[in-house]
Amino acid sequence: MTEKSNFSQWYHEILENAEVIDQRYPVQGMLVYRRWGLSIIRAMQNELEGMLEASGHEPILMPVLIPEDVLGKETKHIAGFEEEVFWVTHAGKNELERKLSLRPTSETSIYEMFSLWIRAHTDLPLKVHQSCAVYRYETKHTRPLMRGREFLWNEGHSAHVDAVDTEKNIADIKEIYTRLISGLLCLPFNLSIRPEWDRFPGAVYTCAFDTIMPDGKTLQIATVHNLGQTFSKVFGIKFEDEKGRHEHVFQASYGPSFGRLLAAAISIHGDDNGLVLPPRIAPVQAVIVPIIFKESEGIVMAFAERVADKLRGMGIRVYTDAGDGRPGAKFYRWEMKGVPLRIEIGPRDVEKNAVMAVRRDTGEKQSLSFDKIDDVRGIFTEIENNIRKSAKEKFDAMAGSAKGLEELKSKAGYGIISVGWCGGKSCAEKIEEFADILSVEEKQGVCPVCGKKGNSVKMGKSY
Amino acid sequence: MTEKSNFSQWYHEILENAEVIDQRYPVQGMLVYRRWGLSIIRAMQNELEGMLEASGHEPILMPVLIPEDVLGKETKHIAGFEEEVFWVTHAGKNELERKLSLRPTSETSIYEMFSLWIRAHTDLPLKVHQSCAVYRYETKHTRPLMRGREFLWNEGHSAHVDAVDTEKNIADIKEIYTRLISGLLCLPFNLSIRPEWDRFPGAVYTCAFDTIMPDGKTLQIATVHNLGQTFSKVFGIKFEDEKGRHEHVFQASYGPSFGRLLAAAISIHGDDNGLVLPPRIAPVQAVIVPIIFKESEGIVMAFAERVADKLRGMGIRVYTDAGDGRPGAKFYRWEMKGVPLRIEIGPRDVEKNAVMAVRRDTGEKQSLSFDKIDDVRGIFTEIENNIRKSAKEKFDAMAGSAKGLEELKSKAGYGIISVGWCGGKSCAEKIEEFADILSVEEKQGVCPVCGKKGNSVKMGKSY
Repeated sequence: MTEKSNFSQWYHEILENAEVIDQRYPVQGMLVYRRWGLSIIRAMQNELEGMLEASGHEPILMPVLIPEDVLGKETKHIAGFEEEVFWVTHAGKNELERKLSLRPTSETSIYEMFSLWIRAHTDLPLKVHQSCAVYRYETKHTRPLMRGREFLWNEGHSAHVDAVDTEKNIADIKEIYTRLISGLLCLPFNLSIRPEWDRFPGAVYTCAFDTIMPDGKTLQIATVHNLGQTFSKVFGIKFEDEKGRHEHVFQASYGPSFGRLLAAAISIHGDDNGLVLPPRIAPVQAVIVPIIFKESEGIVMAFAERVADKLRGMGIRVYTDAGDGRPGAKFYRWEMKGVPLRIEIGPRDVEKNAVMAVRRDTGEKQSLSFDKIDDVRGIFTEIENNIRKSAKEKFDAMAGSAKGLEELKSKAGYGIISVGWCGGKSCAEKIEEFADILSVEEKQGVCPVCGKKGNSVKMGKSY
Repeated sequence: MTEKSNFSQWYHEILENAEVIDQRYPVQGMLVYRRWGLSIIRAMQNELEGMLEASGHEPILMPVLIPEDVLGKETKHIAGFEEEVFWVTHAGKNELERKLSLRPTSETSIYEMFSLWIRAHTDLPLKVHQSCAVYRYETKHTRPLMRGREFLWNEGHSAHVDAVDTEKNIADIKEIYTRLISGLLCLPFNLSIRPEWDRFPGAVYTCAFDTIMPDGKTLQIATVHNLGQTFSKVFGIKFEDEKGRHEHVFQASYGPSFGRLLAAAISIHGDDNGLVLPPRIAPVQAVIVPIIFKESEGIVMAFAERVADKLRGMGIRVYTDAGDGRPGAKFYRWEMKGVPLRIEIGPRDVEKNAVMAVRRDTGEKQSLSFDKIDDVRGIFTEIENNIRKSAKEKFDAMAGSAKGLEELKSKAGYGIISVGWCGGKSCAEKIEEFADILSVEEKQGVCPVCGKKGNSVKMGKSY
């Protein structure tokens, strides 16, 4: 396998070798999700949905098609998406009376329903979510899982009596996404408010979670939009308050991209030997490799079965690789697939009533007695902590700052760089020649273009 | 609520009142799945996927778009679907170079990948499945969950070294679908081989599972197709056998419709008071309704909490309805929603360290002591057995036979009717004026049209 220092090639190879996805589907920017990749996505989806539902979100599923007149109701929104929309114009041999879009996002279709579902303040807050695919005709170069024309995400949508309750929900969502990104996936991120010109079409403001890929480029993995009353006014989403007055609701929408989260987890935790999966999303958490010699095959297999049963009873996803092939080849394969823990069982281990446990992240080996198999849970926590820490160190090492244009030029595009900005539009344009402005910060700084004092911005070269 | 004897109105009302789906989405034949309906579908999906994966199927997820040239490779297949396909022709403001279809089914896109994945006999059998939505521009009258333009299903696809192994898999699938339909959903069905003219486009033969709705119409809920080598020859899916020869694989494809299964479970088990859900698919399996008087509120709520915790610990989905409102109104609501078991807890129950358990299917009440809460599992099994039995009785009562044309005319359209058929095409057309021929049977009979001896057919008026 290619070394990870050659990131782009390593990434393409590991997606194929580990059977994460297949890029050979004959529509550009659309992927076939294979067992390994799909199982990881389903694991993060389940965790996220559980958290959202515990916080009062109802699961829904909307049609994939949104009529042109519904998608176009909010003018800024449609202006932001119109270049990217796939249009269904025909059915059978007939031309449709009105064009139907493949949803690029579901604000408009969901708010069409909100206007039917919301009547009184007792219906609020209304919080819904759906896990689905959305469709955007990307004209930029597509990259598997990072930028595609069909991508998997979860989108949440809320309606509230006022701005204060909306902000409360936004705070909850940031907390939930933090648990998803940092807690479950062990990934570091920068959370910031996007500059005005990079807001979601129709939003009052947009927050974004960015992480940094091994090549120094930033990847936006989730966004949260405060929509104010933009959509409720256009879609007529009103409620009767306690005094009998009819008011428009306040709204938020938010979503992480499962594809990008997967791309980030693969890229940031992976190493020269392949994937290193966070235990809670690994399709197989522990792989048992029996070391078989003819004379001891029976007792080794019987013991392996007992170990597998015990782990399974603890709720751990175990696979016993009893197939043909030498142990070395099996080790190589499951390392490449990123299984967090390998459990080797040979005749000597059986004699000792123990197994040899090998960590994927560190390669560390330890003998675990059968009665102490429960320790596997603790090992998983150690793995999580270790890969989270090591990812954070790499992330922090890619944070920098630049003073003048020369320094900006040399540093921009690798990690997240802080630089001054006067607040002027033409200076922003000049600065963005080097990388994208992710956010405008409170921190003061000196504009590298005009030399005036002002705020500072965080920059990164986005995927 | 409308009585169930007025089935059509009852059905539409219960879908709305129980928040199963919303039919008001502004694209005809496309539904919004709401929490209650979506949760039921997810429960059946999880059970089915578990069984398929235990039988060696890998989960995959294909793009929703299939290019025209791929969809059109197999001529009979495209001929069968071309009237029903939605076409994406534009993206942004540009016309696409080639049209992309919204998948009406995924044989063609999956077999395009099979031709890349399959090389040698060691790659076989290859069995994959995906749960997804498919799109068909129905020109018949659409009916929610029964006939729509977007519907949710699971589709399985397999490739084998020979016809014998294909048949073995088809037998496994029939067994799995039987466990899904009869075991999980407690629904009766008729399994038969569709007549030649009603085969899946491209299939060697098609088996279908039909059930009977309360109005006597039949509903096809799942199909299994033996595809022979039709697709493998067109898509070039070949393998090298043990002797180094290159052969085309044998294939099968199969799928149940989640929407139709849900429609059948709602319609067949439901009663005048609303849904009656089979326990294993109920989003809430037991609802606790505390009977609150001011002076005993504290002890009742504390006891309800203990009961809920104990049930939850058993893996049961419990909801405690502690909201405002009188108990009667709560009973009515949860009955309508079809929750299998209501658990009433009042101050006297607390004194007795017991709860009052009320079955949704029979209305039967029984006092359960706290230490015997485990019995709830047994009650669920009793409910399953009871609703399965009662549905089967209704199904059997709608099986009949007809001798002459007059009798056929009077009986056709209500249940599944057996009638003779000479085997001639024009007689089949005449017979099908009254109802659809579901299958040709071994059983002998006399053709009601021409009076010649021949086989018999089973007939039903399909939804």
